[in-house]
Amino acid sequence: MFLHTKPLQFEAKPEKPDPVYAHKLQELLGGAYGEMTVTMQYLFQGWNCRMPGKYKDLIMDVATEEIGHVEMIATMIARLLEGAPATATTKMAAADPVVGAVLGGMDPQQVIVAGGGPLLADSNGYPWNARFIVASGNLLADFHANVAAEAQGRLQTARLYNMTDDPGVRDMLRFNLARDTLHQNMWLKAIEELQADGLEDVVVPNALLDEEYAEHASAIWDLSEGTEGTQGGWASGLMPDGRHEFSYLLDPQPLGGPGTAPPPDPLLYATYDGSMGAPSGPAFGTEAGPLGKLKDKLT
Amino acid sequence: MFLHTKPLQFEAKPEKPDPVYAHKLQELLGGAYGEMTVTMQYLFQGWNCRMPGKYKDLIMDVATEEIGHVEMIATMIARLLEGAPATATTKMAAADPVVGAVLGGMDPQQVIVAGGGPLLADSNGYPWNARFIVASGNLLADFHANVAAEAQGRLQTARLYNMTDDPGVRDMLRFNLARDTLHQNMWLKAIEELQADGLEDVVVPNALLDEEYAEHASAIWDLSEGTEGTQGGWASGLMPDGRHEFSYLLDPQPLGGPGTAPPPDPLLYATYDGSMGAPSGPAFGTEAGPLGKLKDKLT
Amino acid sequence: MFLHTKPLQFEAKPEKPDPVYAHKLQELLGGAYGEMTVTMQYLFQGWNCRMPGKYKDLIMDVATEEIGHVEMIATMIARLLEGAPATATTKMAAADPVVGAVLGGMDPQQVIVAGGGPLLADSNGYPWNARFIVASGNLLADFHANVAAEAQGRLQTARLYNMTDDPGVRDMLRFNLARDTLHQNMWLKAIEELQADGLEDVVVPNALLDEEYAEHASAIWDLSEGTEGTQGGWASGLMPDGRHEFSYLLDPQPLGGPGTAPPPDPLLYATYDGSMGAPSGPAFGTEAGPLGKLKDKLT
Amino acid sequence: MFLHTKPLQFEAKPEKPDPVYAHKLQELLGGAYGEMTVTMQYLFQGWNCRMPGKYKDLIMDVATEEIGHVEMIATMIARLLEGAPATATTKMAAADPVVGAVLGGMDPQQVIVAGGGPLLADSNGYPWNARFIVASGNLLADFHANVAAEAQGRLQTARLYNMTDDPGVRDMLRFNLARDTLHQNMWLKAIEELQADGLEDVVVPNALLDEEYAEHASAIWDLSEGTEGTQGGWASGLMPDGRHEFSYLLDPQPLGGPGTAPPPDPLLYATYDGSMGAPSGPAFGTEAGPLGKLKDKLT
Amino acid sequence: MFLHTKPLQFEAKPEKPDPVYAHKLQELLGGAYGEMTVTMQYLFQGWNCRMPGKYKDLIMDVATEEIGHVEMIATMIARLLEGAPATATTKMAAADPVVGAVLGGMDPQQVIVAGGGPLLADSNGYPWNARFIVASGNLLADFHANVAAEAQGRLQTARLYNMTDDPGVRDMLRFNLARDTLHQNMWLKAIEELQADGLEDVVVPNALLDEEYAEHASAIWDLSEGTEGTQGGWASGLMPDGRHEFSYLLDPQPLGGPGTAPPPDPLLYATYDGSMGAPSGPAFGTEAGPLGKLKDKLT
Amino acid sequence: MFLHTKPLQFEAKPEKPDPVYAHKLQELLGGAYGEMTVTMQYLFQGWNCRMPGKYKDLIMDVATEEIGHVEMIATMIARLLEGAPATATTKMAAADPVVGAVLGGMDPQQVIVAGGGPLLADSNGYPWNARFIVASGNLLADFHANVAAEAQGRLQTARLYNMTDDPGVRDMLRFNLARDTLHQNMWLKAIEELQADGLEDVVVPNALLDEEYAEHASAIWDLSEGTEGTQGGWASGLMPDGRHEFSYLLDPQPLGGPGTAPPPDPLLYATYDGSMGAPSGPAFGTEAGPLGKLKDKLT
Repeated sequence: MFLHTKPLQFEAKPEKPDPVYAHKLQELLGGAYGEMTVTMQYLFQGWNCRMPGKYKDLIMDVATEEIGHVEMIATMIARLLEGAPATATTKMAAADPVVGAVLGGMDPQQVIVAGGGPLLADSNGYPWNARFIVASGNLLADFHANVAAEAQGRLQTARLYNMTDDPGVRDMLRFNLARDTLHQNMWLKAIEELQADGLEDVVVPNALLDEEYAEHASAIWDLSEGTEGTQGGWASGLMPDGRHEFSYLLDPQPLGGPGTAPPPDPLLYATYDGSMGAPSGPAFGTEAGPLGKLKDKLT
Repeated sequence: MFLHTKPLQFEAKPEKPDPVYAHKLQELLGGAYGEMTVTMQYLFQGWNCRMPGKYKDLIMDVATEEIGHVEMIATMIARLLEGAPATATTKMAAADPVVGAVLGGMDPQQVIVAGGGPLLADSNGYPWNARFIVASGNLLADFHANVAAEAQGRLQTARLYNMTDDPGVRDMLRFNLARDTLHQNMWLKAIEELQADGLEDVVVPNALLDEEYAEHASAIWDLSEGTEGTQGGWASGLMPDGRHEFSYLLDPQPLGGPGTAPPPDPLLYATYDGSMGAPSGPAFGTEAGPLGKLKDKLT
Repeated sequence: MFLHTKPLQFEAKPEKPDPVYAHKLQELLGGAYGEMTVTMQYLFQGWNCRMPGKYKDLIMDVATEEIGHVEMIATMIARLLEGAPATATTKMAAADPVVGAVLGGMDPQQVIVAGGGPLLADSNGYPWNARFIVASGNLLADFHANVAAEAQGRLQTARLYNMTDDPGVRDMLRFNLARDTLHQNMWLKAIEELQADGLEDVVVPNALLDEEYAEHASAIWDLSEGTEGTQGGWASGLMPDGRHEFSYLLDPQPLGGPGTAPPPDPLLYATYDGSMGAPSGPAFGTEAGPLGKLKDKLT
Repeated sequence: MFLHTKPLQFEAKPEKPDPVYAHKLQELLGGAYGEMTVTMQYLFQGWNCRMPGKYKDLIMDVATEEIGHVEMIATMIARLLEGAPATATTKMAAADPVVGAVLGGMDPQQVIVAGGGPLLADSNGYPWNARFIVASGNLLADFHANVAAEAQGRLQTARLYNMTDDPGVRDMLRFNLARDTLHQNMWLKAIEELQADGLEDVVVPNALLDEEYAEHASAIWDLSEGTEGTQGGWASGLMPDGRHEFSYLLDPQPLGGPGTAPPPDPLLYATYDGSMGAPSGPAFGTEAGPLGKLKDKLT
Repeated sequence: MFLHTKPLQFEAKPEKPDPVYAHKLQELLGGAYGEMTVTMQYLFQGWNCRMPGKYKDLIMDVATEEIGHVEMIATMIARLLEGAPATATTKMAAADPVVGAVLGGMDPQQVIVAGGGPLLADSNGYPWNARFIVASGNLLADFHANVAAEAQGRLQTARLYNMTDDPGVRDMLRFNLARDTLHQNMWLKAIEELQADGLEDVVVPNALLDEEYAEHASAIWDLSEGTEGTQGGWASGLMPDGRHEFSYLLDPQPLGGPGTAPPPDPLLYATYDGSMGAPSGPAFGTEAGPLGKLKDKLT
Repeated sequence: MFLHTKPLQFEAKPEKPDPVYAHKLQELLGGAYGEMTVTMQYLFQGWNCRMPGKYKDLIMDVATEEIGHVEMIATMIARLLEGAPATATTKMAAADPVVGAVLGGMDPQQVIVAGGGPLLADSNGYPWNARFIVASGNLLADFHANVAAEAQGRLQTARLYNMTDDPGVRDMLRFNLARDTLHQNMWLKAIEELQADGLEDVVVPNALLDEEYAEHASAIWDLSEGTEGTQGGWASGLMPDGRHEFSYLLDPQPLGGPGTAPPPDPLLYATYDGSMGAPSGPAFGTEAGPLGKLKDKLT
């Protein structure tokens, strides 16, 4: 269960309205790496966490903080969009397309749909959607996703920081940058901790390493012209997982046969010249597979 | 420019058709962490890379390999869907809803739309879309995203490996698992290399660290009930970036004022009792801001 | 079956082109509360209506009108986008990015994709999609959705009315505003009629009222700091349904246990320390549940 | 800022796993009218509310409760998906497509992507997106949307209640049904209160009623064959807004001219026979409109 | 303006309910090539048509028919979903997951959201969206798109025809197949007519043929291994446009330079080693381009 | 398997940066008819092709070329976005909303998300998604879709050609226009070849022509007011398929009964007055249909 306090986690007061910037700031609210994404990603990771204890508690602490970040950015956007009194001059301005284009910022829906408020969308007006988040149940996989999200998030915040001189906006972004710095460090540390606790190793998941084809787990294939890639640390030496040696395969040759599609079911009307014969199965209902048996039982 | 060879990178031949599994395998083709995602993510990272040389070459080598993985999975799905000749018995089977539900697998579009072929969609039939990828121009941020993608990808492949006993499918997945192991190691190594080369540091981006509020870059806030979080390595000690010390803030208090929205523009018809006064700006067109000046010039 | 007349339901002639406004007007065409939404929402409600008679006829009358509104807005947008002859001066203008930005309005697809015509998209270029509509079969639930849609629609129309001085555009919007006024009244009246006819009551659906926990159907929980909420008419007194009394629960305490996830299936590789034991079920195929029985029958 | 308690608002414990039902229950989590929708709709309405006081406090109280409902449903789904130990029998079962289809429920992503956890998606696997919510700043419009959302939500909960006999699931749904009953009553009451407080009237928005064409605000047009619609209370008498009289227009005739598109800009290559002459405007850059003036200033 | 008649264009009565088939039939309603797509594609083409006369009239005739096809399929789906009385036996059945999976068909939203009615979605539950349609203003381009849509539509209808033995469903599909046959013929004829009328030629658009590089308009590049492609009629001879000769370029070599990205703006924090120098422009505001001039005017 | 060469297929070098144009050019990259669409459409058609030989080889040749076109456009966009050094003047410019609006072009994500690089999105910032492509297995249906895609693609390229005077951009577009000319001719020729080879006929699919209602395969219904449609070549004469004669049906009358929905399942709470009786089926589990039989077997 959740509780809400009235004050914001940190102040979100621009010195003056700026509808163009309000539009850009939407990226931190509803973009693929905005605050909404980390909020929902961490909440679902916490709810899907299979161990009560320090990991789950950490995830839920940060998840709960991030809802507050959504609130801060949403509030900042509403204030950046603060409207003007309806004077005759404003009406004239609105009739002028150059000025009108700027008046409305670049996101007409902030005005028409939200009445001068924030949208849950990115800076191109594309709505936030849940395919932006991941909560796989594997904490190592998910913490890597969290590092990535915080890294992209701080990068975008830094870019946006350079796009404004408003002291109030910059004040809030200085706080956000610091939190993103902390969170990157924190998830990196948590990755170390998973290994220290013996819960996960380097490669995700720590499974099937003996069943996969080990001979294909070491060589990078040189499939793009040029061999500069062999000058990197990934061209030889021990891998981070301590199990494999890097190598670089020059002039790689394919290992499989041609990628043909099988003969088609005639009732699906694929274009076909018969050269590959009739389809070989699964002959649903005609044979002794489980489906045939089910069919037999039923008729 | 690209070239195509007829053989697949690795064989993709199931022992027998299995439409239900074909449906699940779509996740590795068009899911958020499927082969299409790493293909397009690496291609755009390569095209957006600002330095010719080893990093760009590595990215393009792997990107080009991944197009071949899309081809392998697509071919495998077409073969798993291989259809049956149209016998009278099959027609009867199709008329039986239990059998029919299985006959068509669980993805009707593979049959109705693709005529027994693969879709560029995930295992719920949701089409692949480009918000699944990121190419920010910052290689550290992007390589973390690549580690995360390969980790989720190998995790999903491992789960799918356990869902089939078909030797042909498992043969291909053993190859895929190995490539995902390699690619996780490789991106982790590339992250080390970026730092060794002095191009990036630990925190993304390596900028604004002196402008952000350092006092907020160290303490995790205890916003979810319970203090188990303080038992982790992230509760104290030096951070991975070597610049900050971790701490854990118990009983955290908000630092901002209340999150109010400003008084509304009356022409937008937000419900308002006047208690906050009239909106303060930006008085578009009425004053000496740049817009006012533009307006003056034009009229 | 449908028939089409050539004249529009109401005139849609702007006095002069205005590509910036044409872009904004897209919101009334393809936005979540635009004419396309009410058209398809009412059509599906009509087709899903389980009673021939006055309700179905009303729904189909209004649905059919709304297709004509889509036509009016689409025509208006095409006319607002009316292009210029290709003079040398125009080409120079197009080469100037400031002017170019305005020339193309703010929706490049209206020009590049639609050749100066309307798009079935909102004012941010996001395509209309069918999750914007609802047709549940329950008329009370759906008529509430209709009131909501007409209310948001008239609100957006009113905002757009203030953004233009073009007499031709305003002429059409005056008609649209009037229709939205009528339709709000009409759906409110139809809600009353459903109750007068004894088909529905206040709460949707009129069912399970005796099975739900009545003790939780009265108190609003004070989960956000501040108790101003208790000053409203919803803090005490009889509810609109005549069955419950409002109350306000200050300092509410959670009623459930902790929100833990169960022990995971080991083959799915969730991170797990074993502290919660092995998963308890459903042991597919191993026991005497229906699945076990099916399995037994088949093997 | 938000805080989180460990206990759930209400218990969410199924008696036994049921993956097929877990899939259906996704509708209440990530569907267009699920808990995520009301959570984000109320949060954005609260943040966009222009008046501190009872309305904003009520909205935030309920919004905060709804985050807890997302948590309850997510927890319930994880528990309904509780996995089986990996026995040889299970593997055999998984190899049988009939059983396999059921084993995985009907949402493969719950297994492959979420590792047996909840997704932020609906019961067809379609991800939640932010176009499901509205926060217009106009409380009357938004409260109508809230009534509609709670009505559809309770209707879907009631349908799902009938699809299970699990006492634990039903226990939670009895609580949810009750909350939906309360919330429907509450928003209806809040609508009354807005009028009692003189902030809004019946029609949204309370504006432009004198500028709209009053003569078109009263008659429903009989555009679908049949006149049963005239038997309803909406065919005559005073409207709910107290300003208009209902009427029903039989045999309605269109009021506009034909819906033609204007002559096209030749550089856009629309098919055109010249019959309508050359386009009339806006002659960007060639004349004395604001754009021409801007152009003149710049060159 | 549109009018609606009560009878369907053609009968849509299944002999008996079949929820699994109802789910599949959604593809013809809300799929990328379903009836909704041709309806909206033709309506927008008609509204965007720049010539009153035979083409526009034809488009509007067919568009209006297609709305009626949406109505027919929607009605058919509702009837295929006709529900059962709530008996004790049914409840038991619903508690059995095998039967339950089939009971609900494969689209839970048809039951939970639409109450046993049709959805505006495809057979995977993905909502129809407006990016499925095109109306470019160029009739030749659009008529080709129409042929393609009718071809895919008839193909899917034919596949669905084979998936049912219900005489009522087949009766309707026999009508639909015939209409799709007619419409394919009709759009092919209309393409001929555009050329006969001198409005369009073979290549879309009939423009810039003298400015494009003619030497690159004839040779197909052999970029995929194998030369079977040269055995087709497209390897030599006159092209359909009568202007070019086909050829096939074996062993093609790239014509451009390397695909490098330029040096980055340092404030965007792309990873960069400086090897390509500083970015060369556009030096916004610092120079005598149009932006600089605007800037000068304003300050 | 695929290989990559460093040089581009054709040069992609603008003379100077132009962020506004970079934004528009996104349409050719990630739009519904951009290079990404033809790439993935042709790849999936090739992988889904059921005949090794000339058709499959042609499709794969062109598909492989199109990946290179994605690369060309992506490179061009990055170069058009080339950034400015961070001077004091630039900062001032960025603080000016008019200039700022243009500085950032009209796609903030190109800057904030991609750091001055291309996005896989269209010119409205909407991400590319896989519902843009089709690969049905039927080559005639798919080649028509390919003609349509190349036609729309060349049309959009031509429009974009007129929107720039940059010699470098025009150089690349002259190449692209030529390739689109070739590809239109090529797919038209391939359609002829399918018929010459006896694999397909005129109507897609070449099936069920004897089962469809031939009497409904000839007459266009005059459902939109006006009879100009009868002046076209589609009003009489032999159809392109050589099997039917065109006719035009004036004053068409519906052939079906009224479009009613059946009586509802009471447990789904559709509003219902009982006038249509109880639902007639399918009485799941209670009778001797296949479901009843399955139920009997299991219990």
